[in-house]
Amino acid sequence: MRVLVPFDAERPKTRLADLLDERERSALARAMLDDVLAAVRAAGGEPTVLSTAPIDVDAPVRVDDRALTPAVNDALADAAPESPAAVVMADLGLATGDALADLFDADAEVAIVPGRGGGTNALVVRHPEFRVDYHGLSYRDHRRIAAEIDADVAVVDSHRLSTDVDERADLVELLLHGDGRATAWLRDAGFELAVEGGRAGVRR
Amino acid sequence: MRVLVPFDAERPKTRLADLLDERERSALARAMLDDVLAAVRAAGGEPTVLSTAPIDVDAPVRVDDRALTPAVNDALADAAPESPAAVVMADLGLATGDALADLFDADAEVAIVPGRGGGTNALVVRHPEFRVDYHGLSYRDHRRIAAEIDADVAVVDSHRLSTDVDERADLVELLLHGDGRATAWLRDAGFELAVEGGRAGVRR
Repeated sequence: MRVLVPFDAERPKTRLADLLDERERSALARAMLDDVLAAVRAAGGEPTVLSTAPIDVDAPVRVDDRALTPAVNDALADAAPESPAAVVMADLGLATGDALADLFDADAEVAIVPGRGGGTNALVVRHPEFRVDYHGLSYRDHRRIAAEIDADVAVVDSHRLSTDVDERADLVELLLHGDGRATAWLRDAGFELAVEGGRAGVRR
Repeated sequence: MRVLVPFDAERPKTRLADLLDERERSALARAMLDDVLAAVRAAGGEPTVLSTAPIDVDAPVRVDDRALTPAVNDALADAAPESPAAVVMADLGLATGDALADLFDADAEVAIVPGRGGGTNALVVRHPEFRVDYHGLSYRDHRRIAAEIDADVAVVDSHRLSTDVDERADLVELLLHGDGRATAWLRDAGFELAVEGGRAGVRR
């Protein structure tokens, strides 16, 4: 399975700016990218990083500084349309080979993993006319686009893959369930779980 | 599979108080309970509601007004310890029979579905010495308790089951992915999805 991994090399993880400075946000984003690439390979995928700027990473890199939607659609169109392709976001810090294998094996022309909050964290495309649209509630839009071209859809149910690491609460999930470089980076940076008022949080 | 479904009949869903008045919170909680009972039965489970007060519901009810931990532990101890038992929270508004069947079929002495934020949304117990402790980061505590009695553990990966409906952001998930009574109640009450600043939310 060819797998595109879009990566924002320039302004990663701005919603963590109250916890991490710019250099730290880049380091965490880069650790998650490495974790995602390892998970993609463990699931039998062949990753290409679709990056907004050149980066040094252990995978082929396609640089495209446009917005996510045209960059992904052009990359999908350039590939052989009869072969399946996947798009897996670079901030899925809990991704595992097992979880991604369930997605890659899903028996549908379009298989979607919704992100918490209505985004699209990962998808597999086996229909030559399908195009992505990451603006707004992309999970709903991708279902609509699939319906318009009569592509059948599978929705893959995974807490690991539905968790994109965007904000403070997501770091709780990384510390609880992660075992990759991103979780190690967080621990090295001094983050730990905390319980305050019966709810889990992180402190540094 | 015997399935306990703990339900707070008296002060449900207090973290939704900025969106719903007390009567509405009770109605939503009750709709989710009905959805969870239907999903348990679809997965082949035999539910008993473990309620803090008598309620009129289409399932056997065991009333226990103590805190969740002693109430669940006594209910587990009263049951035949050699037969498996499950505990499934009543606020899993996205639960489906398929998702619960994966949990019920998990091959382990203790199978856990973590809730987002470190809670325990559902578990299956096949070890007679296991006892629950829902205080604090119960996911971590339940893994520790299982390790102390040498029970092997499976962690079940499901966005549907990891989503307990506690706060405003969880209503987005119900509106996006739910198709039961709770989602219908929300729509009838005038809630709909909204996108503000690129992020999904709900409005009424």
